Formats: sequence, structure tokens, C-alpha cells
Amino acid sequence: MSRPLGALLAPPLSVVTAGVDLFPRALRDQGTAVEVVDWRPPAFGDPADLAALAADPRRVAANRGAAERILAAGAELVDVRPAADALGLPRDLFLHAGPPIDFENASGPLRGALIGAALFEGLAADSDEAVHILQSGRIRLEPCHHHRAVGPMAGVTTASMWVSELRDPVNGGTAYCSLNEGLGKVLRYGAYSAEVIDRLRWMGDVLGPVLSAALSESGPVDIKSILAQMLQMGDEGHNRNRAGSLMFLRDLAPAIAESGVPAVQVADVLRFIGGNEHFFLNYGMPAAKLALDAARDIPGSSVVVAMARNGTEFGIQTSGTGDAWFTGPALTPDGLFLGGYGPDDANPDIGDSAIMETLGVGGFSMAAAPAIVRFVGGTVPDALATTRRMFAITVAENPAYAIPVLEFRGAPTGIDVLSVARTGILPQINTGMAGRVAGTGQVGAGLVKPPQVCFEKALAALAALARV
Amino acid sequence: MSRPLGALLAPPLSVVTAGVDLFPRALRDQGTAVEVVDWRPPAFGDPADLAALAADPRRVAANRGAAERILAAGAELVDVRPAADALGLPRDLFLHAGPPIDFENASGPLRGALIGAALFEGLAADSDEAVHILQSGRIRLEPCHHHRAVGPMAGVTTASMWVSELRDPVNGGTAYCSLNEGLGKVLRYGAYSAEVIDRLRWMGDVLGPVLSAALSESGPVDIKSILAQMLQMGDEGHNRNRAGSLMFLRDLAPAIAESGVPAVQVADVLRFIGGNEHFFLNYGMPAAKLALDAARDIPGSSVVVAMARNGTEFGIQTSGTGDAWFTGPALTPDGLFLGGYGPDDANPDIGDSAIMETLGVGGFSMAAAPAIVRFVGGTVPDALATTRRMFAITVAENPAYAIPVLEFRGAPTGIDVLSVARTGILPQINTGMAGRVAGTGQVGAGLVKPPQVCFEKALAALAALARV
Repeated sequence: MSRPLGALLAPPLSVVTAGVDLFPRALRDQGTAVEVVDWRPPAFGDPADLAALAADPRRVAANRGAAERILAAGAELVDVRPAADALGLPRDLFLHAGPPIDFENASGPLRGALIGAALFEGLAADSDEAVHILQSGRIRLEPCHHHRAVGPMAGVTTASMWVSELRDPVNGGTAYCSLNEGLGKVLRYGAYSAEVIDRLRWMGDVLGPVLSAALSESGPVDIKSILAQMLQMGDEGHNRNRAGSLMFLRDLAPAIAESGVPAVQVADVLRFIGGNEHFFLNYGMPAAKLALDAARDIPGSSVVVAMARNGTEFGIQTSGTGDAWFTGPALTPDGLFLGGYGPDDANPDIGDSAIMETLGVGGFSMAAAPAIVRFVGGTVPDALATTRRMFAITVAENPAYAIPVLEFRGAPTGIDVLSVARTGILPQINTGMAGRVAGTGQVGAGLVKPPQVCFEKALAALAALARV
Repeated sequence: MSRPLGALLAPPLSVVTAGVDLFPRALRDQGTAVEVVDWRPPAFGDPADLAALAADPRRVAANRGAAERILAAGAELVDVRPAADALGLPRDLFLHAGPPIDFENASGPLRGALIGAALFEGLAADSDEAVHILQSGRIRLEPCHHHRAVGPMAGVTTASMWVSELRDPVNGGTAYCSLNEGLGKVLRYGAYSAEVIDRLRWMGDVLGPVLSAALSESGPVDIKSILAQMLQMGDEGHNRNRAGSLMFLRDLAPAIAESGVPAVQVADVLRFIGGNEHFFLNYGMPAAKLALDAARDIPGSSVVVAMARNGTEFGIQTSGTGDAWFTGPALTPDGLFLGGYGPDDANPDIGDSAIMETLGVGGFSMAAAPAIVRFVGGTVPDALATTRRMFAITVAENPAYAIPVLEFRGAPTGIDVLSVARTGILPQINTGMAGRVAGTGQVGAGLVKPPQVCFEKALAALAALARV
């Protein structure tokens, strides 16, 4: 060690810290003096807008009404069938994650998934032809969210793909989601090689029909109940779905065995579901969509009912502002990478899966899933602190989604645009990371937030309506 | 409120507390002045014995060796077959949980299970005849532990029951355990009605053979790996085995589907395993037995290698004292009760399942399973504090059994008799509670400790050997 540096470190250290308390705690444990500054992110928003929204006499009751519908919502898986039937999708209409976007502005993984879908639908013989057709506009693109559907990552859903149908027996809604393909080289992460297309064909030929037959045999599967139990079992419902996937397998395995297909196909389906610890995500997402759709269109409510990303833009919708999207450029997650991948390989944030955080689980309930830090990065104290922080920007606690380590406190639920602006605390999302280049697949998983501008725009729109 | 009481409460309250910090924290949160006294349980043991054991030059290395074997041990499920074959059990030899005991001294649940086993084996036509035969001594009783086996609760294991065979590929041991029957009216809790016996017959006729066929198809199941993952999923491996049971189902379900039996039997087996969230306990226990048997018979080691209860007595064995049992009267657990049962219905502590705590999971790792307080009682902060306390009486931390919320610290492993005596901290066990009256079944679940006298006797024996 050089002399000057030695001199610098010779006197007793004194450190000033701000933000999470892990760092000062570690220093104190080592006997170092620490001065903690009570730093908070700066609030934002036009003061006149903040005042107008705060003064809206409808707001408190409207937000309470939104929260009540979200908390009351149920979610039952009732059917699995092709999207052509379930959603009435024509072959030339491709659904995608996030707010509206065209092919020109699509990022790599969305382009890759759209190319793969064109190949899977037999609309193109190779990727060049698929790009040509997509550029020509002969294939129309619309958000999943505009069709009562949600899709993880690229979220591309087309006529021949089998989708799950979920019903909310309380509020009466219906929601749809594709079947989960597993991790790695999969369509939703933008991969479109032969193995990806072959897997999609098997899912349409075997998995979908077997699940459909099993559901006829077993009756509806209570997805809300599984989600509730997951939070007691170290899952948070977005990037940890291990217990959820196992409970889903448990609930349907006997009926799969009795679905009438040969034993080898029964075993293949059990092996596919059992080998994919994210299988349940595609049931949790439409369950969240059901709850949040039930809270839409309440005049005066500043509660967020959708957060979704198309890989280029992040968009949010609020209960009080109808079908408007408030968008900004999607940020790139910070996290852990697979194999030889690094930060330069990651695409900006993508997928409808932030519907889990909109419901109050996922990143909002990481305290229930401390082991997730090994997948998305961060530390266990950070995971606990994140959940505690989210209570500051939400209007309710969901007793159905109780977090044991917080002494069974309910998940922080119902993001309030006004609270986000007043505190400057943005919602915490955890997410998979897709490769930037079309065809790559998954490169990692991490933590990300919406761009602040989404909330600035929503605040302005809500304030404008409050002044009417 | 009467005048004098009002006067007592009028000045600001000042409270002195000792022990767990939940109480003073709650008081402080309410603005009350609290004086915390650093109370600890009194140490115990003859000072000369403590000094002799502490001075034993073999002790540190012997305990390190014991811990290394425990930590290195693996556990693979390799076969399922009748106890007559696997253990060479004759029909007139019944195994039971805990240290040795005869029928006269057996408590209600052990008597009930022995009666049920006599009926199941066809040795008696009714319960009166079964009692007569058992009293006559024509049926011999021996501990499971004397046959490389373990049994939960009454632990009764007989020739016609199918047992699992586990192997330790590292240390080379073998261990056995019965198949789990589920909860409620089951043999291991002392019930012996027709439904109990019928279920045991189905387990012998269908479940056992199907599992055996599935294992031939799938190859060995890595039980240690499942146990490790359980601790990341809100299980602690003794009274929460939810994730473990689901992972076991996942691992074997495809092979069960291809076992060659009719689809309806496949579905029955999947339904039985899937419907029993404690199914995995009977794999975790022999896995723990394997690890602890590997640490037996190390001269000078004060590490506990078995804690077991027969419903009347609690017994422990240590590495340095061979096959000797150090026993005392079993205590009655404190916890939560099913249906209309209460504390008066509970039998004293029973079962070999405290082998889980001997391994360092179960009650020792409740920090990994905060939701367990809803099953065994206590609070979440108590569960976290219990695990932290167990580090004071153990010689190692097991990195395979990492506890996420403690920032992945390994489970406290290898109970040291000397540390128990020096600190006065007794091992914390969580446990099911059997009804006191033979035939009742389960009445609840709770928390219990060994009687201190077991450790006093072990200390004296270890000290005597240290002086030789």
C-alpha cells in the first residue's frame, strides 16, 4: 500500500451514509462510526397538479373502491384452448406485451418473437420472409392488454397458440394468457430457432389438449389460492414461481393421468410442467389481470391498473383515466446474468408481467421470497426493505397475500399515483432480462423501475380530470 | 376502574423485562419505558464434570470430525419394499419410536399404534386380543433406532409395512423409514380404526409397489437436495414439509405414470401423495438418520447423534458414548390444537422425528419457515430468535441447509452436550401432538424441549470417559 493511502486510512474512519441501512449496519458491526442521513428520493410533479389531485373529493372513496375490488377478486382456471377460439384472433393479428408499438420501433426480443410467431403460424417460410411481412404491415400488432390478455416478456400470442382462460367468480371478469414455455431459448425471450418452434408445436399438439382434458375432469383450479400459498412458500409470484408451479402440478396431475392419452404422453406432460419452475407465472399473470381489470374505470381513482412494457416503452394505466397509456422509455434492469452474458447484452425492460407488481406481489412482496436475491440480485435486507417501502405508495394491504416474515402483513396493494409523486418512491419490479439481439433468448434477471415520466403524465391527466 | 388501580396506572409506566425481545419492543412502540435485563437460562451440570469434559484433549477434533461427517453425508432414496425383506423383520418383532420401552409402560398413542399393527399383521382379530398378545410378551418391542430405522410419532413398523431404503453415497450408510399415512386418524398417532387398517393395506397393495416400480424407472431420488431446497421454500423439514412433498411428487410423477399400472391407480397414487403435505417427512427423517449415524462412535465427541421419544421417555445418544441412551420423562408440547381438543388431550412428546432437530433443521431452522407459527404456535420473531439461539449450542453451520432470511447462514448443526450444559439452552423441537388416549389420533402440534436430565446424564457419562 502506498504511503498517502495508508495515511488516509490510518485515523479512525468516519462515514456518512444515505438510503438503505445495510451499508451503515455493516460498518457499525465493524466498529466504524457512521452518520446516517435520512435521505429520500425527491418528490415530483407540478405542485398545482398535486394540489388539484389531492383536493379531488372523489379520490379517497374511489381508491377505496378500487382496492376493495382488487382484494375481493377471485381467479379460477376454467379452460385451455387455441387463441383463435378463446380470443377470436385472426391469423394476421399478433398480440404483444406492453403499450401499442409497431414493428419498426420494436426492440430485438419483440422482433424475434414476432418472427418466430410468423414461422409458427406458417405465414413465412424463413426469418427474412417473416421480417418482410411484418414490415409490410400485413400482420397487425395490438397489445395483449387490449384483448383481456397478458403475455410475459415479448408476450406474443397468435391464433394457433393455446391460451388459458381464467374467470373471476366475484367481479365476473375473464382473462387470458399463453402457456409457459420454460426458460432459455424460448419465444417470449425473442428466440425463434427450430427448437423454439418445435416446442410451440408440441405445446399445441399435446400440452394444450391434455391440460384441457384434465381441466374437464378436475373442474376449475383455484389460482388465487395457489398464489396465496406461494407467498407462504418463498415465492413472490413474478420471478419465483417454484412452489406455485408445484402446487399447480399437484392439483392437475391426477386428472392428467386420467385424461385418456397414452402413459408416455402423460409422463411427458408431467415432466414438462415439473421441469419448469416458472410454469405458474402464466396463471398468476391473468389472475392479477382479473383483479386489476375489476378496478378499472372508477372516476377519480388514482390507482394504477396496469404496468406493462413492450421492450421499447414502459406504459401505465390508471383506474380514473380509462384506456389511456402513460408511457416513457423503458429502463434496462440491473441484475444477474446467465452464462457469459453481461449488461451490454440486456434489452430494456419488456413484458406484461409487471401486472404482478401492479397487484402487489412480485417485486412488492420480495420479503416473502428472500431466496430470490440469488436470481435477480440485491441482498436479503434489501428485499425486506423493498416490501416495507412499497407500503408508502399503495392504498391497501391484501390479507389474501400475507407475508409471513412481516408477521403476516398483507402485500402492499393498489399503487397510488399521488403517493408515488409525493414520495418520489417508484414501484419496484423484478424481471427476466431478454437478450438485446433478436433470437438470443434469456440473458439474466434483475431489478428495474418504471421511468418517472409515466407517473408524471398520469398525474397531469388525473389532475386535469379532477379540475373538470 | 376502582380508585387504587387508577392511581397505580396514573404515573408513567416503567417495565422490567427479561428473555425474548418481542415484549419490550411492543412496549417501546407504545412509548413505555423499558428496562431490559439480560436474562439467560441457568447453566447446569456438576462443575467437575464440566471441567473434565472441557479439558478432554480429544473433544475439539472429535466434534469437528463428527460435524464433517454430518455435513458431508448424502441421502438417496433407492428402494421401497416390505420391512420383512428390507429389515429382516419377523412378524412378532414390532419396532417403535424412541428409546426402549415395554408395553406396560407405553403411553396411549404407542399402545394404540401397537394394537393397530397387531390387527394389520393379522396377529389379533380385535383390539382386546391385540392387547392380550402384547401384554403376554409374545410380540417383542425394539426401537427403530436399533435397526437403522426411524419412525415418526409412535413409529411402529412391522413386517408387512413397506419401508423406504435410503443410502448415503458419501459415508456409505443405509437407513429405513415407513411410508407416511397423512394426518388425522392414522396409526402413527395411535389410531387403529378400520379406516386406518384399510389405508395401511392400500399402502402395501398399491402405493408401495407403485413407488418401487417408479424408482426402478427413475433411478434414485436425491433426498438431501430436496431438503436443501425446502429451506428456501418456507419448510423447516419437520412440521412443514409442503414444498418437500411437492418436489418429491414432481420427481417421481412421470415415472409413476409409466409404472405400468392402470391410469386409475396412477391417479390414486398421485392424489394420495399430493393430498399429504407431510409425505416428505418420512424421507427427511432417514436422510437425517444417515447423516447422524455417520457421526456415531467417535471417541471424545460430545455431539448428539439421536434425540427420540417413545411417548413416555425422551432419550438422547451421543457420538462418544456408543449405544447408551440417556433418558428422562418426556414433556408435553405447548402449541395449537385441532378441532375441540385442548392441552388435557395431549400425550407427552413422542416420535423419532426429533432426528430432524438433531440434524439442525426442524425447530432449529424455524427462521426458514415463519409460516409454521400458524401450525405449532409462537410468533414469527420467536421463530427467528429460536434459530439464532440454536447456534449457541451447535458446533457447525450446514451450508447445504442455508436459511435465506438469515442471509443464507447454514442451519445450526451438531448439538454439543457441553454447550447445552454451559448455556442452559435446551434444543428446540417442534412436533405433532398425539391424543393421550389410545385410538384418538392427532390432536395438535406444538413446541417442546428435551428434559434437562437427558443432558445431565450424557454430560456425566462423557466426563467419566474423559477422565479414563
